[in-house]
Amino acid sequence: MLAKEHAVGVSAARQRLMDVIEERLFGFLDAERARWSSVDERTAVVIDAVTDLIKAGGKRIRPLFCLSGYLAAGGDPDDQSVVPAAVALELLHACALIHDDVMDESELRRGAPTVHVKHAAEHDGRNWRGEPRRFGESVAILAGDLALIYADRIMADAPPVVDDVWGELRSELIIGQFMDVTAAAEFSADPELSCWIAVAKSGRYTIHRPLAVGATIAGRPELAEAFEAYGTALGEAFQLSDDLLDVFGSSTATGKPAGLDFAQHKMTLLLALAMQRDERVRELVSGDVFDAGALRARLVDSGVRADVEKHLDVLVERGCRAIDDVPLEPGWREELISMAHAVVYRDR
Amino acid sequence: MLAKEHAVGVSAARQRLMDVIEERLFGFLDAERARWSSVDERTAVVIDAVTDLIKAGGKRIRPLFCLSGYLAAGGDPDDQSVVPAAVALELLHACALIHDDVMDESELRRGAPTVHVKHAAEHDGRNWRGEPRRFGESVAILAGDLALIYADRIMADAPPVVDDVWGELRSELIIGQFMDVTAAAEFSADPELSCWIAVAKSGRYTIHRPLAVGATIAGRPELAEAFEAYGTALGEAFQLSDDLLDVFGSSTATGKPAGLDFAQHKMTLLLALAMQRDERVRELVSGDVFDAGALRARLVDSGVRADVEKHLDVLVERGCRAIDDVPLEPGWREELISMAHAVVYRDR
Repeated sequence: MLAKEHAVGVSAARQRLMDVIEERLFGFLDAERARWSSVDERTAVVIDAVTDLIKAGGKRIRPLFCLSGYLAAGGDPDDQSVVPAAVALELLHACALIHDDVMDESELRRGAPTVHVKHAAEHDGRNWRGEPRRFGESVAILAGDLALIYADRIMADAPPVVDDVWGELRSELIIGQFMDVTAAAEFSADPELSCWIAVAKSGRYTIHRPLAVGATIAGRPELAEAFEAYGTALGEAFQLSDDLLDVFGSSTATGKPAGLDFAQHKMTLLLALAMQRDERVRELVSGDVFDAGALRARLVDSGVRADVEKHLDVLVERGCRAIDDVPLEPGWREELISMAHAVVYRDR
Repeated sequence: MLAKEHAVGVSAARQRLMDVIEERLFGFLDAERARWSSVDERTAVVIDAVTDLIKAGGKRIRPLFCLSGYLAAGGDPDDQSVVPAAVALELLHACALIHDDVMDESELRRGAPTVHVKHAAEHDGRNWRGEPRRFGESVAILAGDLALIYADRIMADAPPVVDDVWGELRSELIIGQFMDVTAAAEFSADPELSCWIAVAKSGRYTIHRPLAVGATIAGRPELAEAFEAYGTALGEAFQLSDDLLDVFGSSTATGKPAGLDFAQHKMTLLLALAMQRDERVRELVSGDVFDAGALRARLVDSGVRADVEKHLDVLVERGCRAIDDVPLEPGWREELISMAHAVVYRDR
């Protein structure tokens, strides 16, 4: 086959499995909803909080990497043993987003009100007892817990060989989130720490581990090493690109408010690098009044933006080189290179 | 053997397994701490939040019921296949408590500051950036998530035969918590709903499902039905007794502040029953100023307290009768009866 035909075959096989994944995901959630609604219809509220978030969109990046790892490693496209893990990754991500939005006090996610905001408003509108904020956040805490539990229940159908990597992936996610919260509180410019957080949250959780889960189910766990190098470089790039979008992108493109990380005092990798290089940036973010326009201008004028964009290219190149020499199924090296670009250069 | 000798044998066998469980529990947590601390010592904070809560005490009721179900069903006391499930139950409970304390805004748990209160104070004391309350609650959300994930990781070592009941148990717990939060917000006196919540949270999660997990691992899942009847009656009794303790007990006995449920507008089963029977109670809890003394007096004067205490006895009797005719190992019927009394009559 020619490269182009491989590319078509590669995405068609993955798309067929993606369709099965969507079906399994919503089939599970609908069955849970039906079952609990028959006990008390109010129970549906917390299940719907999970379902609505997943239905609202999202790029299914983690299931896509998981399937890609599986198929690139030679997994049989007609065998559905990889499906539960890919479904679980999306549910786990729903938990991470719902809890993250509480911690960040975000109001918008995937173009819709976040779970805690929606349910605080509901509480307020009904004149219920207690504090609306507390109620909204309680619903969000429980909806996130439920998504995490559902992820795990679906993993009971995955081959036991992935237990370890699935365990690692989840612990790392939480530890990474915790370090993110800690770095924001400490607010010291520590690019090494910010980079470590980016690798934990994006590199491992989003790219490396999903790929490794897929490859492990396909019976080729030895690919994990190359996928780790690929994921580490791209995770850092993904985070930097995310940070750039937060500062320079629009909320229409991202589905969440622009400038949120700054407003939340997030010590992003971009900010850590910029603060270390440029004393003026430190002053701009430490002031009582936050001037997003001035900060944007400073990042451009000081050359930080241009340098970070150059560094992005280096990271993408490094990530792609990491899978140069590993034996993958035909068409998959090209597909993983193309995914690397799609993940990092989202605004292009 | 005489009954008394059985009783000694019964608790000795269970105690040996309880020792293994404590060892496995803290062995796992210590290994995680050591591993992550070597990456960055700050990561230990979120792991310690889980460990400290478990070390602070607690009666290990769920592991005890799980081991009891296992041994009563004839599980081999020298086989450790029940250990992971019992450890996981305690970790799951840590998650439930940590998240519950955020939702209830509790300040004290097991005689120590709750996770979110402790870390909000830490944030405040260090003059970190952002809102101390938000930081404290973020640490608590993540610590709870981590405990839930650890519970699951440990369950990977349990026999697959318990996957279903473990899945049910966790979903029920969250749905029960959600209905609890909803009932508190609606604040309508609905004893049926309050009873359902009590059965979901205490009956199933604390008693019936842990017993069923143990019996299933011992190869006798058919015992689940009798354990369900036992757990349902005792769950309601447990909750009523908890409600009574909240109103009439002292914070020294419970390790948490007295009158908290009332202050948090919790629609407890006790309150739902009392409001339905006595218009004056409804007025007392609906007023702007909450007068705990007046409410206590009214519950006594109206005879609600005495009636609820009588109802407790009926429930304990019903629960114990449920295991009358099932074949259990020698000494275990007596032990389960004694556990029923210990769980319900905690202040005697």
